[in-house]
Amino acid sequence: MKIFNKIVIIGTGLIGGSLGLDLRKKHLVGKITGLSRRKKNVEFSKKIGVIDCSATSLDVVADADLVILATPIEVIIDIGLKISKKIKKDCVVIDVGSSKEAIVSKLSRVIPNFVGCHPLAGSEKKGVTNFESGIFNGSTCIITPNAKTNSQALRKVKLLWKKLGSQVIILTPKKHDQILAFISHLPHVLAFALMNTISEKFLALSSGGLKDSTRIAASDPELWSQILLSNRGNLLSAISSFQRKLDLFKLVLRNKNNKLLMKILEAAKEKRKKLG
Amino acid sequence: MKIFNKIVIIGTGLIGGSLGLDLRKKHLVGKITGLSRRKKNVEFSKKIGVIDCSATSLDVVADADLVILATPIEVIIDIGLKISKKIKKDCVVIDVGSSKEAIVSKLSRVIPNFVGCHPLAGSEKKGVTNFESGIFNGSTCIITPNAKTNSQALRKVKLLWKKLGSQVIILTPKKHDQILAFISHLPHVLAFALMNTISEKFLALSSGGLKDSTRIAASDPELWSQILLSNRGNLLSAISSFQRKLDLFKLVLRNKNNKLLMKILEAAKEKRKKLG
Repeated sequence: MKIFNKIVIIGTGLIGGSLGLDLRKKHLVGKITGLSRRKKNVEFSKKIGVIDCSATSLDVVADADLVILATPIEVIIDIGLKISKKIKKDCVVIDVGSSKEAIVSKLSRVIPNFVGCHPLAGSEKKGVTNFESGIFNGSTCIITPNAKTNSQALRKVKLLWKKLGSQVIILTPKKHDQILAFISHLPHVLAFALMNTISEKFLALSSGGLKDSTRIAASDPELWSQILLSNRGNLLSAISSFQRKLDLFKLVLRNKNNKLLMKILEAAKEKRKKLG
Repeated sequence: MKIFNKIVIIGTGLIGGSLGLDLRKKHLVGKITGLSRRKKNVEFSKKIGVIDCSATSLDVVADADLVILATPIEVIIDIGLKISKKIKKDCVVIDVGSSKEAIVSKLSRVIPNFVGCHPLAGSEKKGVTNFESGIFNGSTCIITPNAKTNSQALRKVKLLWKKLGSQVIILTPKKHDQILAFISHLPHVLAFALMNTISEKFLALSSGGLKDSTRIAASDPELWSQILLSNRGNLLSAISSFQRKLDLFKLVLRNKNNKLLMKILEAAKEKRKKLG
């Protein structure tokens, strides 16, 4: 069942490319046109059948029924503003950025059918050679409407993610950014900072624990510097909350307070169990 | 080829039990006697054939050729001191604790053939039901002799770990504790603190990144409170180093210094690549 006919994916990296793959596989859309600032990416996407056509000019959005903005976060607003003057009136536009408040607030003003989305299906791998079919199946997609969001566009976009197998959760952009600061952006900052704390000559002795803890430190620096900056207010609060927990650890260690240390570790273990 | 004849394993948890399993499988030792403060554990170990005999009194070490101290770290020194008066003169004693300076310094004074060991083969799972054969194969074992260590005992213990498939690395106890503070104890502290920072109601939205980052937060609180306290001097320094990196992150975010942020993230990614 086609939900949209002509679609344009701007940015054919891990998320954009994998989306193309699954939308086609599940026959949810018609013709897919891909755009990327990296010509190599978009040509490769065409070659392996993720998209039908490659384009280099944003003008191709003119007859699109759905445009997916899947570029790094800094460019999403720029491109959104540019295409707002080129799209059809009823064209639905979604983005897949990792922070939502700035994007949704700016783009919902100029695009009548804009719907902010954040599929929690990324990975530390990026780029065209890491397309993966089925990464949205069983994952969560947060949709972040605001007061301006068109309800029919929202309904169609919800349906699209559900058909891809995602569990859809609706949050305000503000709430989304507050939560993501803790569950995603803070863990990334800690992983980056941890790698930068450990002397290179110690790495040979690392065990599985360190590897798991720092897997996300291999995330793309360009993508992630933009994500972190785009949510810096919430992230700074999250870092401060974390620092207070770390200060408590230091105090407990200095005082050899085994009883309180046990309590802290037990609370962490109990909460971790809930993550599955 | 038997390296030791009669051996006693004190503490039949994950490491002690798995050691028994592999020592027997590879015919590296003769009769294995197991001791545990948990009667259930030691009975289960006997039932599944990890040990030949179970015992409740430390007196069984009297005719042992090798004693393995595999209890939580706090008890290692206590039990080591106790058995020092009961063992044969040529009995080799090893421990498998995660910090080494205090243990090696105290036990090498009273046990002529004491050799401190730290197999990097643990996991967040513990206890008798998590025995695993082959966990030492391909892993690293750090052996930490000091000036008092008997060279023949050291040679035999090295051989034992090599026959189990471990890569043996020799470090002083002091160096071991400094390094482990960074590559193991600090990551655990961060994982515990991160879990305690995140509000429980946010957990439903977590993705794979957070799960990986906090896997070790499910580690046993009793075991880990002791490990952290036993290496608190080095750990406090490691936490302070980490805090400086975190302060830099805050500064960079406050100043929206994208260029420096990119550099920090690139450095982390490069180092993470080396971890494999």
